[in-house]
Amino acid sequence: MSKLKLGLPAGSLKESTLEIFKKAGYNVNVSDRSYYPYIDDEEIECVLIRAQEIPIYVQENILDVGLTGKDWITEMSADVEEVAELTYSRSGLRPVRLVLAVPYDSGIESVKELEGKKIATELVHTTRKYLEENGVNASVVYSWGATEVKPPVLADAISELTETGRSLKANNLKILETILVSTPRLIVNKESWQDSWKKKKIENMITLLQGALFAEQKVALKMNVSENNLQNVMEMLPALRKPTVSNLFEGGWVAVETVVDEKDVKDLIGKLKDAGAEGIIEYPLNKIVP
Amino acid sequence: MSKLKLGLPAGSLKESTLEIFKKAGYNVNVSDRSYYPYIDDEEIECVLIRAQEIPIYVQENILDVGLTGKDWITEMSADVEEVAELTYSRSGLRPVRLVLAVPYDSGIESVKELEGKKIATELVHTTRKYLEENGVNASVVYSWGATEVKPPVLADAISELTETGRSLKANNLKILETILVSTPRLIVNKESWQDSWKKKKIENMITLLQGALFAEQKVALKMNVSENNLQNVMEMLPALRKPTVSNLFEGGWVAVETVVDEKDVKDLIGKLKDAGAEGIIEYPLNKIVP
Amino acid sequence: MSKLKLGLPAGSLKESTLEIFKKAGYNVNVSDRSYYPYIDDEEIECVLIRAQEIPIYVQENILDVGLTGKDWITEMSADVEEVAELTYSRSGLRPVRLVLAVPYDSGIESVKELEGKKIATELVHTTRKYLEENGVNASVVYSWGATEVKPPVLADAISELTETGRSLKANNLKILETILVSTPRLIVNKESWQDSWKKKKIENMITLLQGALFAEQKVALKMNVSENNLQNVMEMLPALRKPTVSNLFEGGWVAVETVVDEKDVKDLIGKLKDAGAEGIIEYPLNKIVP
Amino acid sequence: MSKLKLGLPAGSLKESTLEIFKKAGYNVNVSDRSYYPYIDDEEIECVLIRAQEIPIYVQENILDVGLTGKDWITEMSADVEEVAELTYSRSGLRPVRLVLAVPYDSGIESVKELEGKKIATELVHTTRKYLEENGVNASVVYSWGATEVKPPVLADAISELTETGRSLKANNLKILETILVSTPRLIVNKESWQDSWKKKKIENMITLLQGALFAEQKVALKMNVSENNLQNVMEMLPALRKPTVSNLFEGGWVAVETVVDEKDVKDLIGKLKDAGAEGIIEYPLNKIVP
Amino acid sequence: MSKLKLGLPAGSLKESTLEIFKKAGYNVNVSDRSYYPYIDDEEIECVLIRAQEIPIYVQENILDVGLTGKDWITEMSADVEEVAELTYSRSGLRPVRLVLAVPYDSGIESVKELEGKKIATELVHTTRKYLEENGVNASVVYSWGATEVKPPVLADAISELTETGRSLKANNLKILETILVSTPRLIVNKESWQDSWKKKKIENMITLLQGALFAEQKVALKMNVSENNLQNVMEMLPALRKPTVSNLFEGGWVAVETVVDEKDVKDLIGKLKDAGAEGIIEYPLNKIVP
Amino acid sequence: MSKLKLGLPAGSLKESTLEIFKKAGYNVNVSDRSYYPYIDDEEIECVLIRAQEIPIYVQENILDVGLTGKDWITEMSADVEEVAELTYSRSGLRPVRLVLAVPYDSGIESVKELEGKKIATELVHTTRKYLEENGVNASVVYSWGATEVKPPVLADAISELTETGRSLKANNLKILETILVSTPRLIVNKESWQDSWKKKKIENMITLLQGALFAEQKVALKMNVSENNLQNVMEMLPALRKPTVSNLFEGGWVAVETVVDEKDVKDLIGKLKDAGAEGIIEYPLNKIVP
Repeated sequence: MSKLKLGLPAGSLKESTLEIFKKAGYNVNVSDRSYYPYIDDEEIECVLIRAQEIPIYVQENILDVGLTGKDWITEMSADVEEVAELTYSRSGLRPVRLVLAVPYDSGIESVKELEGKKIATELVHTTRKYLEENGVNASVVYSWGATEVKPPVLADAISELTETGRSLKANNLKILETILVSTPRLIVNKESWQDSWKKKKIENMITLLQGALFAEQKVALKMNVSENNLQNVMEMLPALRKPTVSNLFEGGWVAVETVVDEKDVKDLIGKLKDAGAEGIIEYPLNKIVP
Repeated sequence: MSKLKLGLPAGSLKESTLEIFKKAGYNVNVSDRSYYPYIDDEEIECVLIRAQEIPIYVQENILDVGLTGKDWITEMSADVEEVAELTYSRSGLRPVRLVLAVPYDSGIESVKELEGKKIATELVHTTRKYLEENGVNASVVYSWGATEVKPPVLADAISELTETGRSLKANNLKILETILVSTPRLIVNKESWQDSWKKKKIENMITLLQGALFAEQKVALKMNVSENNLQNVMEMLPALRKPTVSNLFEGGWVAVETVVDEKDVKDLIGKLKDAGAEGIIEYPLNKIVP
Repeated sequence: MSKLKLGLPAGSLKESTLEIFKKAGYNVNVSDRSYYPYIDDEEIECVLIRAQEIPIYVQENILDVGLTGKDWITEMSADVEEVAELTYSRSGLRPVRLVLAVPYDSGIESVKELEGKKIATELVHTTRKYLEENGVNASVVYSWGATEVKPPVLADAISELTETGRSLKANNLKILETILVSTPRLIVNKESWQDSWKKKKIENMITLLQGALFAEQKVALKMNVSENNLQNVMEMLPALRKPTVSNLFEGGWVAVETVVDEKDVKDLIGKLKDAGAEGIIEYPLNKIVP
Repeated sequence: MSKLKLGLPAGSLKESTLEIFKKAGYNVNVSDRSYYPYIDDEEIECVLIRAQEIPIYVQENILDVGLTGKDWITEMSADVEEVAELTYSRSGLRPVRLVLAVPYDSGIESVKELEGKKIATELVHTTRKYLEENGVNASVVYSWGATEVKPPVLADAISELTETGRSLKANNLKILETILVSTPRLIVNKESWQDSWKKKKIENMITLLQGALFAEQKVALKMNVSENNLQNVMEMLPALRKPTVSNLFEGGWVAVETVVDEKDVKDLIGKLKDAGAEGIIEYPLNKIVP
Repeated sequence: MSKLKLGLPAGSLKESTLEIFKKAGYNVNVSDRSYYPYIDDEEIECVLIRAQEIPIYVQENILDVGLTGKDWITEMSADVEEVAELTYSRSGLRPVRLVLAVPYDSGIESVKELEGKKIATELVHTTRKYLEENGVNASVVYSWGATEVKPPVLADAISELTETGRSLKANNLKILETILVSTPRLIVNKESWQDSWKKKKIENMITLLQGALFAEQKVALKMNVSENNLQNVMEMLPALRKPTVSNLFEGGWVAVETVVDEKDVKDLIGKLKDAGAEGIIEYPLNKIVP
Repeated sequence: MSKLKLGLPAGSLKESTLEIFKKAGYNVNVSDRSYYPYIDDEEIECVLIRAQEIPIYVQENILDVGLTGKDWITEMSADVEEVAELTYSRSGLRPVRLVLAVPYDSGIESVKELEGKKIATELVHTTRKYLEENGVNASVVYSWGATEVKPPVLADAISELTETGRSLKANNLKILETILVSTPRLIVNKESWQDSWKKKKIENMITLLQGALFAEQKVALKMNVSENNLQNVMEMLPALRKPTVSNLFEGGWVAVETVVDEKDVKDLIGKLKDAGAEGIIEYPLNKIVP
């Protein structure tokens, strides 16, 4: 039997990745702490490894397909196909950024002033390349973690991944510039992408993952409307998906159902009530395939 | 930009509060243990503090609006507008009560017998006021926690918050009387409540929170009914929301859909099947705005 | 008031059992670590005990009804009514099996070669009976846990429960044979089963539990179809539940809604799109009563 | 090379057992959670298993020697040599007792009143034998844990191990009688005890373990005394070990050194100062072999 | 039997307090999380409560004696005898200080500039008194914890206990002034201090606790010296305790033994070797009573 | 003031390193999770970083002196002075080794057979160099952790640090060869080693650390001997340190005191008793400077 070898990230992306795969219809069971979890698709073999390692294993054809961040794809200069961007909805958080940061009281205000300085980072190549592009000569050294505590004793500046900037601030560091904005990507080995069976399987996976991601930001709304108010209510509903109209048991009334952006609901509900909608209910969705 | 300053409780109410805000459509991100979490509404600034502190910060206009328990609003005699009661559904648990309790073998049977005794509590003012109203003189001392282990060595009685009474029982204490029954409340600073922009924003928040709370206790039922049995089935369905009737692909049959109390489903399903309903499905709701 | 005494398993089955009861409509609150949790049905008294103990307590009429595994019902030779098998969906995991296992390098290849050996197990009776049926004389000793580390120093072989076989493999053990495949069962005391009030209450519980289990493997699909494509789309939909057809607000289009196996969705979505379905949404179900 | 196979208890006795072996001079390394820890004596092979299992493994000659409690030796009726009692000093705690306990409000006051009752316990045989000796017929059933929460719903009484009685009290149980007082014992297989090499090795182990246990309750005291006061001071020192007398650099003074019971030090120090001792220092001991 | 009621602090001081009591010879067993731990002195009854509560319980004669910090004795204005200061040695850390702190970028540089500001603190009275003494009017409000995150949103400044200042710095706060330096104290009820039995018992406790604290900072040194070098070596040894001189088995050599400050050992050893000392050994002490 | 900048390892070596520094007389306080812990020597500035990073920071003169493993000094080809080997006593464990390991069933029996294979490791340079020395061409790739689970799916072999080999065995890997045996080393920057103040300070640190390490493997023995038996007893005592002989208060007896290897005590005690020694006591040592 043909098998698709899939690499999933074991670190900070793990929980949200497994959740989105579950919503997409792929149950990955990691209950016994194995690095080779069970997935309920007999044609897929699953490996949990560090996000850093996935680009190389995909490039080397040890894995057919992997999910990792743009940051590590860039750092590794991996020669792979990047076939989908998967912007996990994370409760409104900004995406991960790789930033240059220096101590507040360092007096350094721009990347140019890093000339001749020591910079600690986990993404050495990406940082070096950025500095070169900016015409800056600096010593970039690999940091095995706790990078944000290195300045000013062990480094003059750092290049570090951050979501909220909070950890930087707590260490009295200010952000100079953003080197890279990173989101999760699905990457595929170039040979595997030529294999029609694998390609079709991966494309189906993308459809399902994006359907699940899309649904995370939507909800379904259902409401009762008297026939008189139907036109008014309809004008308020966004055109995301054609609304359904069903009869109520009680004559003269219809039920209208549609899908809207979750973030719009807060404002929409009041307007719908004003336009004559009653008994508005909202329910969750697993997946939307437009 | 105008900002609404919102205080949420950091302690035992935290998880259930964040969950109900999430269902209402407000995503509050506390992943990095900050006391100033991110909320996905640019017009709101959010603070996580102890429930005890919220009444005063709202009264003093440091916060516009806060969520806290009736217990601490009472204890603090806070001069605030109490604009909504939010009875979180907690899997059937009774609400929090402030009770007077004494050791089983103390011989004390009524509040009157606390005359001259030592009473430990975290809610000193509320307890003192209750004793005064009952004409009892007793020494009420503040307890910094572990109140239920204080009798009989360090106190004669306690006045303590309890949900199930289990911790009291495990410490061989019996409840004499209930001083107060407490549920979560939304409170607003009196000045902020005069500000029309803030008032409208808070009222919308209440609609959404109550819609989410209401939905927690409801589910949607959908079932197939032959046209012959429709009248019978309809008579069984509670009138919470006008039922929808749609045609099935197969002639002579309709689909009926409605919203019912979750606690009624256990009994209702048998009756609906007897009345001719088939293929009954139940699905969850996020929000109901009547 | 009549009361039904219900035993639920406290160990590894606990979380999934409470979850399926919740979906069935029974909220069991174990928040304060009690062994006598609160259940939101006044006619039921609930006890959390070890799965091993439930068969005897049901047999002895200390409990009316209990949920436990086939493994322990067999081991205890309990004289009870086995009224339902509840195959919890566990993300595709194989069910629990009781297997005979020996060290890889023991040279033992079949159950016959266990003649005269020492076998450690938590299920002594079941193991002994199986060996007798196979004409093997061996010394079976009770193991208080960590059974899989006993060979080769403390035992020659073990008889052990396993889901994935991973722990056996990590201890260099290979499986010889499967003695028993076990799934959760609802068992009832024989006298209680004669009591018509209790029987009706238990049967209702079974309907709801099975409705919840059934729903775990299904999802609802809703899609927009132009009237031209309706017949094509209908032919693709499995006949699990009669599809509903409603009109869209836009003429010439209908909404089709049905229930399908979750595991089929991965393949079905592509085919539906090919057949002309648009705006496919999937949403979760709590319960299905056919 | 000859090897002595030693079983150490994996459960509640583990930490204190490893500590006393360490003081005796045997370093047992369990850092990687193995059940076969490393011990720094090449002639010993060490196994960590449940205290319950040790008596049978020693009886069956799978182990030469084991450390377990008197409770499980009794329960298992193990045919072994009991060669040493090791009363671990546990900060003044009473030893473990197996007691019969009933609910406070059960009205039961003596073992005789257990006639016809249900008794849950982990030590079925010991409990049954005790009841028989007292002429009581009762149903004794094995309990897989959480025994103290079983009355009154699942049992009328329990027979349970306890150190402080606190857990019993917290479950509203009172102690009727003590069936057994248990301390740790070193047990030896009868054949191994005939082997002179093994016997000598075990006897040396006993000397060292007892030397370490003895030292746990002692401390060394050293003090300066002028020659005039020497006789007075000497009369106060207990005769545990002959005191040493050394000269100080300063003439007319001597240093006295001796070993005393730690529990006596609190009173002794004041008396010694009164008798003219100065610069009293106390230091810890690893081991004392009288 | 007479009993001395002793209160020990349950919070951050707990571990170090129990350790120093253990060294002093009082074993306090808190293994089962009780608030009434067992102490191996039958004449003492022990209670573990919050450091904040101890001053009042001692003042009110509910406890005879208690160990708490100077900070809470001051805050509570407790009318008690302060009979001993116990400066726990904490690996070189500075003692706890109550400090006034403001955000780095607040522009506030002195206590005077707090006029009219809001100050959050757990020690309201002490803070108010300090401000009054400095002629500053400010609003001091009680903080239920997480005080250091309150500025600048919820307070302008804080008054907070700190050892290292690290948590303040991490929250971008700078220290303005120190209100109070606090160390642990033994406090006694005024009546109990008049009771001669209690007084003697407490004085003995102080001797032992101070002996243990004193020993924490000392070690014993023993070394071999040829008689020729004895005078030189002697001149280097500090006069803390009269050195002992014993003969070695080998003629012409003596062993010298003394007690020195642990912090001096680092420098002393090199000098002693230079002066002719050989085979220097250092060993730990439990207690020193001068 | 001159300062010595010292790097200590933050990972698996941390606890044992801090303990040996404590015994040597350097108290390092890391209680508030800082990477810049407090050390009670004003002339030292302490940094906690990963063992991997220390060689480079010392080479670059960011640190004067650091403690790290031989493994990482080798891997980093750091140009530093290696001034002391510190063989921490770890309860009899073998030192850390870097080994080549392959799956048991790989058929690979020697390093030569790794030709053309993929090898995962955290020590890429050391592994590559070893393979080159053995004339083997193989692809060595960096592994970000969980290296032992990579074969056979993600690698053919691994080069991994191990103490007991247990984790390798649990992953069905066998050791082919040992590349390197690693122990902790103190390394010094080459310039700093020329600075006489720094050199003297580091040499003193080495004396104290080695004194503490030496003492970990020794204990002091003290015993009473009648003058008749003195010669016999003396012949049995190892010559590690000249024994002391003091008089007992009782005539005709002397006290003998000496230092011996802890591992010899188990055998020595029996022999000493046979030779007439009585009241043997053993006590622990902090430090020994020969």
